[in-house]
Amino acid sequence: MIDSNKKTALVVSAHSADFVWRAGGAIALHVGQGYDVHVVCLSFGERGESAKLWRKGEMTEEKVKAARREEAQAAAEILGATVEFFDIGDYPMRADKETLFRLADVFRRVQPEFVLSHSLKDPYNYDHPLATHLAQEARIIAQAEGYKPGEKIVGAPPVYCFEPHQPEQCEWRPDVLLDITDVWDKKYAAIQCMAGQEHLWEYYTRVALQRGVQAKRNVGITSSKNIIYGEGYQSIFPRVTENLG
Amino acid sequence: MIDSNKKTALVVSAHSADFVWRAGGAIALHVGQGYDVHVVCLSFGERGESAKLWRKGEMTEEKVKAARREEAQAAAEILGATVEFFDIGDYPMRADKETLFRLADVFRRVQPEFVLSHSLKDPYNYDHPLATHLAQEARIIAQAEGYKPGEKIVGAPPVYCFEPHQPEQCEWRPDVLLDITDVWDKKYAAIQCMAGQEHLWEYYTRVALQRGVQAKRNVGITSSKNIIYGEGYQSIFPRVTENLG
Amino acid sequence: MIDSNKKTALVVSAHSADFVWRAGGAIALHVGQGYDVHVVCLSFGERGESAKLWRKGEMTEEKVKAARREEAQAAAEILGATVEFFDIGDYPMRADKETLFRLADVFRRVQPEFVLSHSLKDPYNYDHPLATHLAQEARIIAQAEGYKPGEKIVGAPPVYCFEPHQPEQCEWRPDVLLDITDVWDKKYAAIQCMAGQEHLWEYYTRVALQRGVQAKRNVGITSSKNIIYGEGYQSIFPRVTENLG
Amino acid sequence: MIDSNKKTALVVSAHSADFVWRAGGAIALHVGQGYDVHVVCLSFGERGESAKLWRKGEMTEEKVKAARREEAQAAAEILGATVEFFDIGDYPMRADKETLFRLADVFRRVQPEFVLSHSLKDPYNYDHPLATHLAQEARIIAQAEGYKPGEKIVGAPPVYCFEPHQPEQCEWRPDVLLDITDVWDKKYAAIQCMAGQEHLWEYYTRVALQRGVQAKRNVGITSSKNIIYGEGYQSIFPRVTENLG
Amino acid sequence: MIDSNKKTALVVSAHSADFVWRAGGAIALHVGQGYDVHVVCLSFGERGESAKLWRKGEMTEEKVKAARREEAQAAAEILGATVEFFDIGDYPMRADKETLFRLADVFRRVQPEFVLSHSLKDPYNYDHPLATHLAQEARIIAQAEGYKPGEKIVGAPPVYCFEPHQPEQCEWRPDVLLDITDVWDKKYAAIQCMAGQEHLWEYYTRVALQRGVQAKRNVGITSSKNIIYGEGYQSIFPRVTENLG
Amino acid sequence: MIDSNKKTALVVSAHSADFVWRAGGAIALHVGQGYDVHVVCLSFGERGESAKLWRKGEMTEEKVKAARREEAQAAAEILGATVEFFDIGDYPMRADKETLFRLADVFRRVQPEFVLSHSLKDPYNYDHPLATHLAQEARIIAQAEGYKPGEKIVGAPPVYCFEPHQPEQCEWRPDVLLDITDVWDKKYAAIQCMAGQEHLWEYYTRVALQRGVQAKRNVGITSSKNIIYGEGYQSIFPRVTENLG
Repeated sequence: MIDSNKKTALVVSAHSADFVWRAGGAIALHVGQGYDVHVVCLSFGERGESAKLWRKGEMTEEKVKAARREEAQAAAEILGATVEFFDIGDYPMRADKETLFRLADVFRRVQPEFVLSHSLKDPYNYDHPLATHLAQEARIIAQAEGYKPGEKIVGAPPVYCFEPHQPEQCEWRPDVLLDITDVWDKKYAAIQCMAGQEHLWEYYTRVALQRGVQAKRNVGITSSKNIIYGEGYQSIFPRVTENLG
Repeated sequence: MIDSNKKTALVVSAHSADFVWRAGGAIALHVGQGYDVHVVCLSFGERGESAKLWRKGEMTEEKVKAARREEAQAAAEILGATVEFFDIGDYPMRADKETLFRLADVFRRVQPEFVLSHSLKDPYNYDHPLATHLAQEARIIAQAEGYKPGEKIVGAPPVYCFEPHQPEQCEWRPDVLLDITDVWDKKYAAIQCMAGQEHLWEYYTRVALQRGVQAKRNVGITSSKNIIYGEGYQSIFPRVTENLG
Repeated sequence: MIDSNKKTALVVSAHSADFVWRAGGAIALHVGQGYDVHVVCLSFGERGESAKLWRKGEMTEEKVKAARREEAQAAAEILGATVEFFDIGDYPMRADKETLFRLADVFRRVQPEFVLSHSLKDPYNYDHPLATHLAQEARIIAQAEGYKPGEKIVGAPPVYCFEPHQPEQCEWRPDVLLDITDVWDKKYAAIQCMAGQEHLWEYYTRVALQRGVQAKRNVGITSSKNIIYGEGYQSIFPRVTENLG
Repeated sequence: MIDSNKKTALVVSAHSADFVWRAGGAIALHVGQGYDVHVVCLSFGERGESAKLWRKGEMTEEKVKAARREEAQAAAEILGATVEFFDIGDYPMRADKETLFRLADVFRRVQPEFVLSHSLKDPYNYDHPLATHLAQEARIIAQAEGYKPGEKIVGAPPVYCFEPHQPEQCEWRPDVLLDITDVWDKKYAAIQCMAGQEHLWEYYTRVALQRGVQAKRNVGITSSKNIIYGEGYQSIFPRVTENLG
Repeated sequence: MIDSNKKTALVVSAHSADFVWRAGGAIALHVGQGYDVHVVCLSFGERGESAKLWRKGEMTEEKVKAARREEAQAAAEILGATVEFFDIGDYPMRADKETLFRLADVFRRVQPEFVLSHSLKDPYNYDHPLATHLAQEARIIAQAEGYKPGEKIVGAPPVYCFEPHQPEQCEWRPDVLLDITDVWDKKYAAIQCMAGQEHLWEYYTRVALQRGVQAKRNVGITSSKNIIYGEGYQSIFPRVTENLG
Repeated sequence: MIDSNKKTALVVSAHSADFVWRAGGAIALHVGQGYDVHVVCLSFGERGESAKLWRKGEMTEEKVKAARREEAQAAAEILGATVEFFDIGDYPMRADKETLFRLADVFRRVQPEFVLSHSLKDPYNYDHPLATHLAQEARIIAQAEGYKPGEKIVGAPPVYCFEPHQPEQCEWRPDVLLDITDVWDKKYAAIQCMAGQEHLWEYYTRVALQRGVQAKRNVGITSSKNIIYGEGYQSIFPRVTENLG
């Protein structure tokens, strides 16, 4: 699935729609730059984020999962990413060692240049920080020579936390503003795949517009860059660079 | 002094040696990349950072300042930067509106791509955070259309805090590690200009080596980059970018 | 047990006495205002908070539990609350999915207007933050349409952390000071049920007096309110209101 | 100006438009509830927040101030508040003891039930935290019996920080979400008085919509409250209350 | 005043009573251990902390100051400390360079082994953090060879913040608990000199009892130490030691 | 193994080499002062910290463990400590109740005066904070009368976090600087036992030199103490003392 000559990125999404609202721009942007982007959805959000489906009546967990899978696949396709589903359940999400190793193996296979996942805290949603914790620990294991010795270990890909629903309550603070203006149409098309969560379409459009204004402001109003839509990210690790400009 | 076709950077240094220990690598590196780098030394550190000179005896503040100016100019020359001295005094440093406007005017003249100054806190040295505060406020004024209307305002250059003497006590946390391996010889030559502070030469060599190891570790041991010396920086503002790799 | 026409509140207490020291005033106060208040004691504190009983000799875990249950029931009765015991053990406390769902079911049954539990951190007592974590996650699950679909989900009741034994060491900071002057006699009577922990009676009386003075001070000395006893709480979620006065 | 039989509130605004973007909803809402709301504009924002006016050409500081005063008065009128201008200058703002006492006297005269001002930090704008600092210190002086002895001192009105332009970068975290749905039309009409800052009209409309969604979410989706627009506030002091519901 | 053969300590108190409530135990304890302890009262607290005196009527600032001076001197005598008054005014407190140098000269004269002052933040009282800021900057200047060259500079005495009135609101967190059981009678006698602030006598007795219980708890209940009264302190600088027991 | 007439200390090390890099100086120093120091290595670091061994080829987990055990034993012997291995595995480390009780039993047996373990956070290594968490919870259980009633409980030994590899990224901040100058030769000899991690020898020599310079600086340059090597520690609990000098 992963072409070894191409740069790659990995997105770890607690529920099947998170990667769209929170990182759809980054995905489409890097796909456009030639990256292979792979998404792992740990669950379908079948219990906690499918209220509209459940209210339809005549529902079962299997039906909800199937509907959510379809939406996520459609969205991933629009964004240009591959997607796989771990189906470990939500509300509550729990991850045993098996799941951890399964994700570590994805890290080894994908060899990502960078990793996207949730914020470190979220008092509204305990699955989100668990997903990040899992992604971080899997990354550490995938770096260890002693885990499945002989396999190619991963480097030290930067990890970015994408934006939670209520940023200040999650103690999330963006130190990166990504200009997604050129791929906004793709992100909004992917967002529209989430039929069950229509109330969030406009919410996340406004988030993108606010982050766009802020990105513009942090570039400086004298800049020629015309930024309209943005996504915010918080880095876990220091950035290594040779230029501060 | 500033060539309008070249990229530029501005360093605001509380005392005349700070820019060498803390940002000498960044200066030499960007000069090597074609930047014009300009340093403002707010004081000579004549009272607080010239112990060795004072202990010689037969000293006056003027003699100390002259010696410190010479050292700083020699160091700046080695690094390839221009330097100017505000001579506003140290221990304690105080800045009135005049000084603020003078620095805002430097911002307008230099039009920096980025700015380097001290950490936001330092319980061992109150001049340091004052310098950063001054640099930040001068930057804000230089951005205002209503300050000396008609002049070219500045954009929104990122501001980086360089490393204080005891990082954890200053609540300073690097989110950027700059690879200064290629210019270390220049930085060390500049450091040796500081005859009055020999005890710090090896201290800051070790700082550079530790940050180098950390940079290497954050790139990943599989990387082909051979990083030996580094400098750490803490960003004040979010970075605007189109790539997370 | 819960009268659906009355307002309700839920208290999640790690050990069987915590709800008395830390929230006895809030319980009595709201009972007086017509609320049904329900307390869940996750354990009896049989191992970690029953030193005096163990020192009597001839003790077994069952005897300790029975004594502690009796004390807690007597205290709850004085305060006017109902109480149930999960008996999941203490020192260490551990909660599996069963326990989580059991507590989520309590949330669904009680439909609380607000929730009280422990501080988010406590380096002296790891059971306390675990109780809060459990309460928070149970609340989230009880809100999910996909958990036991068809049942009445809960709204978004505010969660307040009550005061730990050493507030500053627990990074606990009260943003609510509750005036419990009118019900202090009830709280003190309930406190006296805790025969095994006499050394704490005066400690928590002083806590109440200090919080009372602080409440008085934050109302303003010109206020006509005569506050003598208080309890401090830290909110997890923002308060939604139509008045700031 | 202040009717002693009515409840009152005080807003301390660094520049002449801040109170509109950041607290217009709270002002209109409380005016509607019978409060007298008084606004102090410390400056007109003539240098730093009047870019559009300056770009017109043929401008002087006096002309800019006059235009800004007019806008602010029109906005205050729509919101139902009184407004006064201290005209102490901006970019940089500086406040001497005179200004401090002048503001303390306003506190004494207004006897506010609550106070609104800026966030405690703002790396983009140093006038903002200075305004809050001034408001806080003036409040403390107005409480002191020894300041102009014999005058009626003020109580302990709560102080709320309204929302800065880039909340996370200012370490601002709302713990109060105010439902301003019923007065949104007034706030938007007031916003439209700010002819020089049209780019911010939609920005702050989106802020209000996001805070509205969040308020709705924190009340709980089962609530019958129909919240569409909100304003966020951060409390400085603990709230004293007799009810946690 | 300072005997050069004895160990010394310096207390910097914003108002004339602060050193009694907050550090009276430490003063008496170290005097008992043979230290010379010197107290600098920056102001008499004549405006902000003398409400009872002002309410008597027929008062002037001079009368209030005289009364407060007498109380402070009586308290210092009981505790065994010397005291001097800078009389720089309160509410608001402001310190110019003269005051800073005056305090630096006290540091040089006293050559303290340790320094006590206020918390770093206090939203209820802006004079308090200003006093600490001043003490810290004076200490730094007194360490500088270039300030009054030839004088004996000071070493690096640890600085401890004593307990503010509402610790959690001031972000103050004790990392030292001082056992003052043996000198409590002296502290309480000194407290009783503060005739104008009787409401605080019992408040600070309870503070001492709570810190005593906490100290006892942090020593361990198996310890033979019988601690009843305590004072809490927060360190600014790391402690240098050769033993961790 | 533990002589009941001697003072004791306990070190909880996630991997078999951590205690050497991070606490070797403290161990040798206290052994020299007559303490019995006992080290628990939770794992051998066989997967995550044995890269060099794995790269040799022909390796198995058992061989790696044996080599690591030997190194750790040799190092402990040089430092004068006893060591035991829990062998619970690394990358990821997981601890069940058994392990917790096993460690609590070590606390009971050793009755330590103080405890050393890892930092509370480490985004590069999830085993490290888990070890500290385990040590803290074991300490709490060992204090409980109800755990194995009749056994001698432990007091309240202070817990210190030793220095992680990248201190600022781990939010670790030393509040204790230990002078290890006199035992540096022992620490460096122990370090040299770690044949598989030679790249770290010089790294931790530089750490010791930097902490030494900082210790010297915090004692004051006028002190007669000649500190060259140091180790930094962060306290979890407040220190109880009768002297602040």
